[in-house]
Amino acid sequence: MPKTVQDVIDTIIADVPGAPFPDTIDTLKTGNAGQEVRAVAVTFMATYEVIEHAIQLGADLIITHEPTFYGHTDETAWLEHDSVYQAKRRLIDKHNIAIWRFHDYLHSLQPDPTISGLLKALDWTAYALPGQPFVCELSPRSLHDLVLEIKSKLDLQTVRVVGDLQMTCNRIGFLVGATGGRMQIDVFNDWSLDTLVCGEINEWETNEYVRDASSAGHPKALIVIGHSVSEEDGMQEILPWLQTRLPKLPITFIPTGNSLHSV
Amino acid sequence: MPKTVQDVIDTIIADVPGAPFPDTIDTLKTGNAGQEVRAVAVTFMATYEVIEHAIQLGADLIITHEPTFYGHTDETAWLEHDSVYQAKRRLIDKHNIAIWRFHDYLHSLQPDPTISGLLKALDWTAYALPGQPFVCELSPRSLHDLVLEIKSKLDLQTVRVVGDLQMTCNRIGFLVGATGGRMQIDVFNDWSLDTLVCGEINEWETNEYVRDASSAGHPKALIVIGHSVSEEDGMQEILPWLQTRLPKLPITFIPTGNSLHSV
Repeated sequence: MPKTVQDVIDTIIADVPGAPFPDTIDTLKTGNAGQEVRAVAVTFMATYEVIEHAIQLGADLIITHEPTFYGHTDETAWLEHDSVYQAKRRLIDKHNIAIWRFHDYLHSLQPDPTISGLLKALDWTAYALPGQPFVCELSPRSLHDLVLEIKSKLDLQTVRVVGDLQMTCNRIGFLVGATGGRMQIDVFNDWSLDTLVCGEINEWETNEYVRDASSAGHPKALIVIGHSVSEEDGMQEILPWLQTRLPKLPITFIPTGNSLHSV
Repeated sequence: MPKTVQDVIDTIIADVPGAPFPDTIDTLKTGNAGQEVRAVAVTFMATYEVIEHAIQLGADLIITHEPTFYGHTDETAWLEHDSVYQAKRRLIDKHNIAIWRFHDYLHSLQPDPTISGLLKALDWTAYALPGQPFVCELSPRSLHDLVLEIKSKLDLQTVRVVGDLQMTCNRIGFLVGATGGRMQIDVFNDWSLDTLVCGEINEWETNEYVRDASSAGHPKALIVIGHSVSEEDGMQEILPWLQTRLPKLPITFIPTGNSLHSV
């Protein structure tokens, strides 16, 4: 019996603790809930290129972690006369692509696949604390060595760092994405961290707290790896979980990559 | 006759169009409005180091563009038990330092000093459009050459860039600070830009719009120089304006510098 977009969504949500959520941005952004699904593409973000790639693969449902239309809520009224939006919308409509966001529900899985995926990419899964997957205890190393190791393992051109590169790091916390300064600052205390690895920051918040910490004699370190870098491995990590629940549907992961390049 | 903190604030606000604003975050963050001011320090952000520097200079009022306590509204209740906050607060209280934020009022001056300061640092003041100080028409050059020129003139280690480095740039817009994706995306159309230079981004917004623009055949470029880099020159630019209005007070600019370093 053919599966519809709604069948796929219902199957996924059925195994999310506490779901369905009354208030979530995990909604259908394009297409119709009733349309048939022949193949699924899973990605960090449904960019124009990712959508083209999905079409080549014959996918008619894209499951994306991040927004499609350049804002958290995917509102489009403000973009109606924008040629970039219009081109993306034409591509989507011509090929009848349904796009569903898998963000709030994904982060509610236990453990959060974005953390599992990132720690696996770093080969640090074994160092996560029991019951606390967001904290790794590593053998002591300098911030500089830690940064070089992260760059090498994640194949990054540059990362942005606050802190004395000679300080010793051993209790490392991870907050993927953009959680905001309060949560990032709170976990230094709540998790007794010397170092936080995060996706992105508001530049008047956590980076300035960490700069003040060093000045005031309470040295801490912040490593900003980028939003997509912090979560893209998690979207790949979820593939077997999805395939188990949707055994008859071809499901393919499409890499998004980082749009930002350091020059 | 000695000037109080309130006298200084009133003197500044008196020359801001439309001031006083009923709703503004430009409030006194530490100290008392009635305390006497002997010397003023002006800075991008009242970091722990900047406050130490101000104390060395004998300044008792710091005028800061950005927050002091790691959040837009400078709320501190959530930080009461944080050792970094406590150390900064002790330093401020011991030396009786008043800190006033000069953000909304600063950006309301005509022209906005943050734009004037940035264009002066780039030596592009002469290229700003008449009546439109946020847009420069430069002779056509590649994105790569443009980026190298900006890096050289602003003495930057790296900038983050989206777009084909070989594309031609000649109509460049500037949005300092963190204005959010909607404004950044809208000005590509409203100002007919090929290139936007901005302070910071949310990484699911403008950078993804610009990536899609290139994929969809509407090439555009984004150059993210950093929040402090985009506005610090503006706080230095405002010094003569302040000194003219407060002729008897010693006023010194204290550089904040960027807390984020690329590794």
